[in-house]
Amino acid sequence: MQEINQKFSVPFQYKTLFTENMFDVENDCLKTVLEQQSHNHSKKILCVFDKEMSLHHPGLFNRICKYAEYHNNLFEPVRSPIIIPGGETAKNDRTYVDKILQAIDDGGIDRHSYVMAIGGGAVIDTAGYAAAIAHRGIRTIRIPTTVLAQNDASLGVKNGVNAFGKKNFLGTFVPPFAVINDSSFLKTLDQRDWISGISEAIKVALLKDSSFFEFITSHAGDLQNRDMPAMKRLIYRCAELHLEHIATSGDPFEMGSSRPLDFGHWSAHKLEQLTNFELKHGEAVAIGIALDVVYSSLQGLIDDESCSQILNVIENCGFKLFVPELKSKLDQPNNTDSLIHGLTEFREHLGGQLTIMLLEGIGKGIEVHEVDFDVYREAIDKLAVFESANNELLNAT
Amino acid sequence: MQEINQKFSVPFQYKTLFTENMFDVENDCLKTVLEQQSHNHSKKILCVFDKEMSLHHPGLFNRICKYAEYHNNLFEPVRSPIIIPGGETAKNDRTYVDKILQAIDDGGIDRHSYVMAIGGGAVIDTAGYAAAIAHRGIRTIRIPTTVLAQNDASLGVKNGVNAFGKKNFLGTFVPPFAVINDSSFLKTLDQRDWISGISEAIKVALLKDSSFFEFITSHAGDLQNRDMPAMKRLIYRCAELHLEHIATSGDPFEMGSSRPLDFGHWSAHKLEQLTNFELKHGEAVAIGIALDVVYSSLQGLIDDESCSQILNVIENCGFKLFVPELKSKLDQPNNTDSLIHGLTEFREHLGGQLTIMLLEGIGKGIEVHEVDFDVYREAIDKLAVFESANNELLNAT
Repeated sequence: MQEINQKFSVPFQYKTLFTENMFDVENDCLKTVLEQQSHNHSKKILCVFDKEMSLHHPGLFNRICKYAEYHNNLFEPVRSPIIIPGGETAKNDRTYVDKILQAIDDGGIDRHSYVMAIGGGAVIDTAGYAAAIAHRGIRTIRIPTTVLAQNDASLGVKNGVNAFGKKNFLGTFVPPFAVINDSSFLKTLDQRDWISGISEAIKVALLKDSSFFEFITSHAGDLQNRDMPAMKRLIYRCAELHLEHIATSGDPFEMGSSRPLDFGHWSAHKLEQLTNFELKHGEAVAIGIALDVVYSSLQGLIDDESCSQILNVIENCGFKLFVPELKSKLDQPNNTDSLIHGLTEFREHLGGQLTIMLLEGIGKGIEVHEVDFDVYREAIDKLAVFESANNELLNAT
Repeated sequence: MQEINQKFSVPFQYKTLFTENMFDVENDCLKTVLEQQSHNHSKKILCVFDKEMSLHHPGLFNRICKYAEYHNNLFEPVRSPIIIPGGETAKNDRTYVDKILQAIDDGGIDRHSYVMAIGGGAVIDTAGYAAAIAHRGIRTIRIPTTVLAQNDASLGVKNGVNAFGKKNFLGTFVPPFAVINDSSFLKTLDQRDWISGISEAIKVALLKDSSFFEFITSHAGDLQNRDMPAMKRLIYRCAELHLEHIATSGDPFEMGSSRPLDFGHWSAHKLEQLTNFELKHGEAVAIGIALDVVYSSLQGLIDDESCSQILNVIENCGFKLFVPELKSKLDQPNNTDSLIHGLTEFREHLGGQLTIMLLEGIGKGIEVHEVDFDVYREAIDKLAVFESANNELLNAT
């Protein structure tokens, strides 16, 4: 037997830019991004818009065209934007991916041209997936417009759509060409979208940065009340921690079975499904974090005081800590309608051994490979009690 | 404007193994491959077979199951093999990708399980694409069974299927988990499949290794006459040169516009299409190489003697140098039925600037960014004359 051992590294590089009103003609941000590859600069761009976003920004495509024109025809949109619905609808319906692929073909979009996706995480995931598989990868400029997409979902190296009833069953690891976080899009978010992305910041603060958690603790009210400077600071630090993790974890394309940033996510994914996606991802993550925090405390990993502090911060940002679906089929771990079954699904998606992140202190995560279903049941009961106690307190005042 | 500059490298590693009768129970090859990841070793395997290959090897799946059993249930096939037709049929019909995805879901194949594809390059490309997009990447063990797949098509980091009438419109860059080249599969190839892969070896020898070209020159007859030791040597060296190129080119995922190993390929892709894929890829590449060799000589890059030597070697291996489709719509470069239009399509698929590899000596390629259509027309005429002169010589003897 002869063998050749193939070994190489692929370097990746992309910028995440933070700006305001990026399509004002004086704003140089997009210009800088496009001109960084002047050698092979194709001018073709295919725009993909989130429907909800586009309703709030009716003149957007016009402003994009004027921006291009003002900057000496910096780029050329190959057609009017493809508009797709936000949220899981975009990811569940295969026709949206097909529509983008068709437009890539029709427009002669090549590997040095661009797909520019403007919207929430789901739209960016869908457009990013279509762009990743066309010609083995069209450059994607991601312009996330929600808090969740700006501080987490659109920063990393993944894309994906749902299939066979499973979240992100289809997807690839492909870094973006660039990410542009424009805070002006945040102003038109409804209150649930404004709040829901905060949970990913709480998550990454709890895992990696206790002083960032202190910032969130002391600004929970400001954040809930749409204070823009507080939100911009939260998004920047959260983005920075996520990007740092991808660059330094040693496994950016997740070839192992661990996913250290998915704290609280095994139950969050399952809750989204059990509530037919009426719970938004960030709202489900807030509950998922609360659950794993209580579980961590019941396991003696963190003290009761830290546990209560964290639950209070989550609530003070505007999140619920409990939904009835937490309790569905709780004693039937093999029933796919049971929250506990989310552990099996989480393991299956990553493959290999079950790996769950818990807390052993504020700012310090710890991985475990086994969990106790009974303790999870107890944790769920505690969450219900905590929530109703706080509600009573609220009603009494 | 704030910015975070994200920068990281992703390391990849995989083995290409050369063996014989890999499913004989005493053969350790597959066992070694699977046990290299003992930590996260899933036992699940989904087999995808090339229909043509499976007709020549009727007991194959049984032998695979016995191999697993003998080695202490080394792995567990989740179902009987999915059988798909070879050649472009596999890549043209989207239902094959869907069938593999469905089986991945049904079988609970996760990111630490395996898809094992056995067949020609097209089947491996199709199975590899499906595996690459499922759960953002299932491990793929490629077992190529043709000369072309063993010495070129199945070694690299690409997969893909056709869409919108375009070759490899859909695909990704994802390295395999392992490649196993088993020479026993070559014995049952028909003569056209035996020969056609030789052209990729001629290609890489011409670009990179003059002593390898000498080997091919002196063994052309043996190679054509199914001498197995000569063929194994050809495959090994050709594989080695291709793998070395991927590892050292600095651009394994082809982010630039250059594709230095695609010598002779711009016209080969077009000829495959113009002949409705009656010409096999390797046969088209032989003609494509011949064309670009004559073009190189007409441009004064190589001397006439080298040119004739190369054309003779290609013929001596059993290839034709001319098909009538070379001349279709030759004076209409914008007609998609014209060979010349292949240059536009080649540029579009890669994006950016036109980049064509030519020869400036045996063992030495050179990239050019502009070509002269008239000189290409002259080169095609010369090829026709060369082929008919050789045919006359052949008929006279």
